[in-house]
Amino acid sequence: MRRNREECAALDAADPLAAMRQEFTLPEGVLYLDGNSLGALPSGTPARVARMIEHEWGHGLIRSWNDAGWYGLPARLGDRLAPMLGAAPGQVVVCDSTSVNLFKVLGAALRLRPGRRTVLAERVAFPTDLYITEGVTSLFDGARSVLLPSAADLDAHLGEDVAAVVLSHVDYRTGELLDMAAVTERVHRAGALMIWDVCHTAGALPISFDDCDVDFAVGCGYKYLNGGPGAPAFLYAAERHQGEARQPLSGWFGHARPFAFEPGYEPTGGIRRFLTGTPPLLGMAALDASLDVWEKVDLAAVRAKSLALTSLFMDLVEPLGLEVVTPRTEALRGSQVAVRHEDGYAVVQALIERGVIGDFRAPDLIRFGFTPLYLSYVDVWEAARHLREVLESGEWRDERFARRSDVT
Amino acid sequence: MRRNREECAALDAADPLAAMRQEFTLPEGVLYLDGNSLGALPSGTPARVARMIEHEWGHGLIRSWNDAGWYGLPARLGDRLAPMLGAAPGQVVVCDSTSVNLFKVLGAALRLRPGRRTVLAERVAFPTDLYITEGVTSLFDGARSVLLPSAADLDAHLGEDVAAVVLSHVDYRTGELLDMAAVTERVHRAGALMIWDVCHTAGALPISFDDCDVDFAVGCGYKYLNGGPGAPAFLYAAERHQGEARQPLSGWFGHARPFAFEPGYEPTGGIRRFLTGTPPLLGMAALDASLDVWEKVDLAAVRAKSLALTSLFMDLVEPLGLEVVTPRTEALRGSQVAVRHEDGYAVVQALIERGVIGDFRAPDLIRFGFTPLYLSYVDVWEAARHLREVLESGEWRDERFARRSDVT
Repeated sequence: MRRNREECAALDAADPLAAMRQEFTLPEGVLYLDGNSLGALPSGTPARVARMIEHEWGHGLIRSWNDAGWYGLPARLGDRLAPMLGAAPGQVVVCDSTSVNLFKVLGAALRLRPGRRTVLAERVAFPTDLYITEGVTSLFDGARSVLLPSAADLDAHLGEDVAAVVLSHVDYRTGELLDMAAVTERVHRAGALMIWDVCHTAGALPISFDDCDVDFAVGCGYKYLNGGPGAPAFLYAAERHQGEARQPLSGWFGHARPFAFEPGYEPTGGIRRFLTGTPPLLGMAALDASLDVWEKVDLAAVRAKSLALTSLFMDLVEPLGLEVVTPRTEALRGSQVAVRHEDGYAVVQALIERGVIGDFRAPDLIRFGFTPLYLSYVDVWEAARHLREVLESGEWRDERFARRSDVT
Repeated sequence: MRRNREECAALDAADPLAAMRQEFTLPEGVLYLDGNSLGALPSGTPARVARMIEHEWGHGLIRSWNDAGWYGLPARLGDRLAPMLGAAPGQVVVCDSTSVNLFKVLGAALRLRPGRRTVLAERVAFPTDLYITEGVTSLFDGARSVLLPSAADLDAHLGEDVAAVVLSHVDYRTGELLDMAAVTERVHRAGALMIWDVCHTAGALPISFDDCDVDFAVGCGYKYLNGGPGAPAFLYAAERHQGEARQPLSGWFGHARPFAFEPGYEPTGGIRRFLTGTPPLLGMAALDASLDVWEKVDLAAVRAKSLALTSLFMDLVEPLGLEVVTPRTEALRGSQVAVRHEDGYAVVQALIERGVIGDFRAPDLIRFGFTPLYLSYVDVWEAARHLREVLESGEWRDERFARRSDVT
C-alpha cells in the first residue's frame, strides 16, 4: 500500500515512539538512514563522557578505578545490555572490538569441541567475521574454515567435524534475518556450537539468546545501540560454558586475581574471563549514556515501528524500477532495506548531497537503515521522494558523484 | 645530597619545564605520584573529545570516517607518537590494548621464526605480558614460554629454540631500566626476535627503537602519555618485518581492501596490517590531545628532570629506614621510585588520606611515579615529608587503612 505524505504525518502523530527523537542530537537538513552503520548521538552522551573525563579522570585520577566503579564497568554495561539480548545477568560483557571478541569465542569454541576442527561460516558474511575465522583456525592444528554459499546450505555441511558455526543474524547487505532458534537447534543437533554475530540486530529487534540456547555471540556498540564511533563491542557466553571455556586472549583483566600479580594465568569465574586488557573507558561512558535511552523504550515497539518503516519504504521505492533485495516477509527482515543499482555509488553520493544519508556496499547495493528512535514516517516518505527525484532527474550521472577508490 | 624546601623552590624557579604544569588539570590538595599508573588530564583533552562527539559524530555522522579523517587516525597517531620512540614514520600504530597488541606481535614473531618454539619472558614482568605469552604459545604447536628469574639470566637461556624474547624496558615494580641496545643485540646474536614492552618508558625517557634495531614493541597510552583511562595502546613493528609479518588477529581494518568486502584475508602493506577491528575513536581523540602537550617538550629535558626528581626523592626517603629498591644508578632507573615496607598497603592508604597519591604492589612495594610535566621539586619534597610523618606518627596503623581484598 503506497501512502502519501499526509498519511505518513498521521502515522507520526500516532507514533508512541515519536518523542524519542528528542533524545538525540541530529544535524539540521539531514535525513539519516545510516544508523545501521553508525548510530546517532544521544543527547545525554556529551555530558556523560565529560563527567568521566573531568570528574572521574581529572579529579578522581587513579582512585576512580574503585570510587567511580571503572573496574566493574565491562560487566555492569553487559548486564545493562543483557535484557535487550534476552540474556540473564552475568553472561554479557562489554569490551574490545567485535573482531577481537569473535576471536575469543571462536578460540573457546574450538577448545570446547576438541575432536572437531571445522568452523562453518557464510561466504557473504561481514568480512571481518571471515578474516577472524581464518585467523583463529590457522592457529589450531588441523582446523579449517568452510565458507558456505549461504546459510541455506548449512544442513549439507553440518558434519561430524564441525566444531562451531558463525552466522550473522541479520545480513549486513540485504537485511535478511535468520531464524535464531531454528538454526541454533539444527547446529546443536549436529553436535556443534552456535556463535551469532548480532551487529545488525542489537537495538533493532528483540532476541533471546537464553531462550534460543545460543552458545556464544558477539556484537557491536556503534550501530543501532548508538554507542559512538568505535564504541566497545560486546560478547555473550552462555553460563553453561563459562566454567570450561578457555579463550586464547588471556590478559590480566580476565584473571582470577588481577591485582595479585601472579606469573601464571588462571581465568576468573564467570563472564569476566572473556576480558583481556584494560577496558576502553571513554568509549564505555558513551555506551553507558546510550543505554539510558534504551531503558526508556520497549524493543517490541521498536520492532513494530521498524517493520512499518521498512515496509513503507519498500512500498514507495518498488515502483521506481529498482530491485529491492531485502525480503518483503517481515519475519525474514531486519531493520534495513537494500536496493540494487549498477551505479549505486553515484546514486548514494547524489542522495548525500541532498542530505539523505544511506550507504553503498560493493558491487551494487544501496543500503538504507531504519532507526525507529529517531526516524519518522515522514522522514521515510521524504527519503523515498529524494531517491525518486535522483533517479528520475539522472543527477547521479554528474561526474562529481563518480566512484573513487577510497573508503565509504 | 639532602635538599631543604627552599632549595627545592629554587630548583622550581629555574626549571625549564615548570610552565608545563599549566597544561594539566589537577585537583586541589593532591600530590599526584601515580602518573605511572594513570596519567593526569591534559587541559585540552575535554574540548578535543567534545569536538569529536558533538561535531564529528553528532554533526558529521558516518561522513566523518572520511571528512574528519577517522579512518587514518590509528596510523596518524602512531606517526605522532613515533618521534618519542625513536621510530621513523610508518612503524607505529595506535589501537586496542597492550595485551591484545602483544598477542599480535608474539604471533607474528613465532611465524617469523618457524623453526624455533620458545618465548622467553621475565617471571617478574607485568603479569599480562606473561598471561598473553602463555595464551599465544598455547596455540602454536610445540611452543612454550620459559620464565626467567630475571633479565640477568637471559644469556643462559638464549638457545637455538628461542623465537622471541619479551621484556619490559622499565620494571613496573622496581623502576629498573634495561639497556635496550645491548639486550636487543644479544637477542639478535642468538637468532631470536626482540619484543619490548615500553609501558613504563613511553613519555618517561627518550628511546630509539630504530637505532636499537628493535623488532617489535608494545606500550600503553594511559600512563606517562596521559591518554586517559583505558586509552588505546600502541604497537611498533620494524619496517623490515612488515612485509612478511602475519599477525593472527586478522580483522578487516588490517585488510588490503577493507571496503571491497572480499571473503579472504589479505593483509595490507605497512603497519596497518597490525590493526584488527574498528578503532576506539573517543579514546583516540583523548590521546591525540595528549600528544599536543608532548609536541611542546623535549624528551631529553623531561628525562633530566625525571632523574633529578627521583634522585631528590631517594635522598629524602633513604634516612627514613625504608629499603629503596629502585637503582641509584641513573642509567638503570626509569621514572619511578619503589620502597619496601611490610605494611605498604596501609602506608599508601594513609598517604592517600593526606592527598599524596602513590600506589601499592603486592606483597610489599610502595611505588611513586615522577612525571616531570606536572610535578615540581617542592611537590617531591612535600611528598617525602608526608611519608616521613606517616611513618614517624604510626598513623598508618589505624584500622581504616588495613588491607582489603579488592582492587587498588
